[in-house]
Amino acid sequence: MIDRLTERIEALGCPVVVGLDPTLEMLPEKLLADAVRSYGETPEAVAFAFLKFNKQVIDATCDVVPAVKPQIAMYERYGLDGLRAYQMTCAYAAGRGLVVIGDVKRGDIGSTAAAYAAHIQPQALFGRAFDIWREDAITVNPYMGGDSVEPYLEVLRGADKGIFVLVKTSNPGGADVQDLRVQAAAGAAGAAADAGAGEAAGGAPLYEHVARLVSGWGADLVGTCGYSKVGAVVGATHPEAGARLRALMPRTFFLVPGYGAQGATAADVARFFDKDGRGCIVNSSRGITAAWKKDGGGEASVGKAARAAAIQMRDEIAGALGWRT
Amino acid sequence: MIDRLTERIEALGCPVVVGLDPTLEMLPEKLLADAVRSYGETPEAVAFAFLKFNKQVIDATCDVVPAVKPQIAMYERYGLDGLRAYQMTCAYAAGRGLVVIGDVKRGDIGSTAAAYAAHIQPQALFGRAFDIWREDAITVNPYMGGDSVEPYLEVLRGADKGIFVLVKTSNPGGADVQDLRVQAAAGAAGAAADAGAGEAAGGAPLYEHVARLVSGWGADLVGTCGYSKVGAVVGATHPEAGARLRALMPRTFFLVPGYGAQGATAADVARFFDKDGRGCIVNSSRGITAAWKKDGGGEASVGKAARAAAIQMRDEIAGALGWRT
Repeated sequence: MIDRLTERIEALGCPVVVGLDPTLEMLPEKLLADAVRSYGETPEAVAFAFLKFNKQVIDATCDVVPAVKPQIAMYERYGLDGLRAYQMTCAYAAGRGLVVIGDVKRGDIGSTAAAYAAHIQPQALFGRAFDIWREDAITVNPYMGGDSVEPYLEVLRGADKGIFVLVKTSNPGGADVQDLRVQAAAGAAGAAADAGAGEAAGGAPLYEHVARLVSGWGADLVGTCGYSKVGAVVGATHPEAGARLRALMPRTFFLVPGYGAQGATAADVARFFDKDGRGCIVNSSRGITAAWKKDGGGEASVGKAARAAAIQMRDEIAGALGWRT
Repeated sequence: MIDRLTERIEALGCPVVVGLDPTLEMLPEKLLADAVRSYGETPEAVAFAFLKFNKQVIDATCDVVPAVKPQIAMYERYGLDGLRAYQMTCAYAAGRGLVVIGDVKRGDIGSTAAAYAAHIQPQALFGRAFDIWREDAITVNPYMGGDSVEPYLEVLRGADKGIFVLVKTSNPGGADVQDLRVQAAAGAAGAAADAGAGEAAGGAPLYEHVARLVSGWGADLVGTCGYSKVGAVVGATHPEAGARLRALMPRTFFLVPGYGAQGATAADVARFFDKDGRGCIVNSSRGITAAWKKDGGGEASVGKAARAAAIQMRDEIAGALGWRT
């Protein structure tokens, strides 16, 4: 998926991924009321409304953006009905040619991680293969270490799929763990010397050590585009860290949340790209999907406003990168 | 749930939680064949078989053990059918009086964590409350820091629920991140002095810093039993770490995976308990649920073998703790 993702980004001139994280508050009143008329005041009605809403956003943006990132928590909170809307959103987006990044942040010990790998690998069952979750890539939590990630790497060795491992997240509290200063291990002296200034005063932050792990996990999974199937999540709200990680991980593609609603600007995220303006895709969720609320046009303006917001974000980032506009 | 859990452990004299992590290989042939006869060669048949299998284990052990811990990944791999079996397993176990710990290892930024909190909090919807996932407690990943955990704490302040935060996991690869040596922050000088030897030579391991965070998150959520609703996951495969964390976190209840199949013994896990033999529950999954395979009795022996294995594990741990047997 990494070659397809980079090709689509370049063909569209648009390193933007639309986060599909619906909430009840985000839905036009009439859209939810219509769902309730059919399904009653039930989680099923919410799920139907989420799917219909997502389809409008997908239809209106699929020729502008290369990818979508549904956040599974927003669906999981409404149980099986919600998760059915998640699956159908993934399948619908894939059908419109979009790369689908499932924001699931799974992570567990090896045998259990192999079960979570079902998100990016059809499950062998009764001699057939069932493609259950239908994502092209998923996000993964690194806290449990290398053997918890290995089952995903095993999938990536044989299939056109990807993972994005959390390195430096966009929320302020991420610093509680990710910014702790870690001492270079004896065996990592060379790496520490390479890394330069960041290491000097009292060790490097934990996220840089995780960055090296992620870089290593993806080293033999580099696509023809020059980037690995093992990417990293790096929050737009930390532009200094982003610039430094860009230098530390030259083969690692970045999935960057935190644009817009969380405060980061196009100038901030420009630092997450390589010198050729590649290697990065920037997420916006509410900034695109809730744009209709500023329009005031109700359900009819969901798609139109999302499209306009996606185009505006594309142009902001392209401008900051010095691309032709 | 922490008071109910500790009461049940003491009433039964059994600090054992049964991990309900079914796989196709774990099922008696006839049980799966029966399911296929009704549902065809489908994920639905697997889900039906998982649920039936779990019910047999639950029925046979619910007067021996205080709790079960279904691992959601094993169900999620079979999609919505699998997840329905997960929900029904949780509900069935709760109906038999067991404390249900959902091993979901979720973790995300605040607004998204609030959605995952649906696992332990009924969701308000159309003026009613829908209890969707039905767990008493869930496992949580700490990599994203304090603001990613806060939404769960908010639930715990108002409800009889719990969380267990990953601190030191049972898999060898956990060391890649959790054992990195972290320097004490300037403000933590007092804590470092308290902590003693571990801090001296080159900083404490990351998991001890996470332990302090977890301890702090749970400080105002201590039940009448003396333990907090915010517990920790500490792998049985690291008895030295367990003993040290026990001293570092006197109010934190431990959920301990890694017994048996992963190699830890009763003498190992005895070190995770406090001086009164409290503060800890030890998980076994395959050791209990797949015990029927050694029996050779097929489906009829699933419950009987699980019960015998649970009793044996109870007695092993009670013996190591010097309890009356």
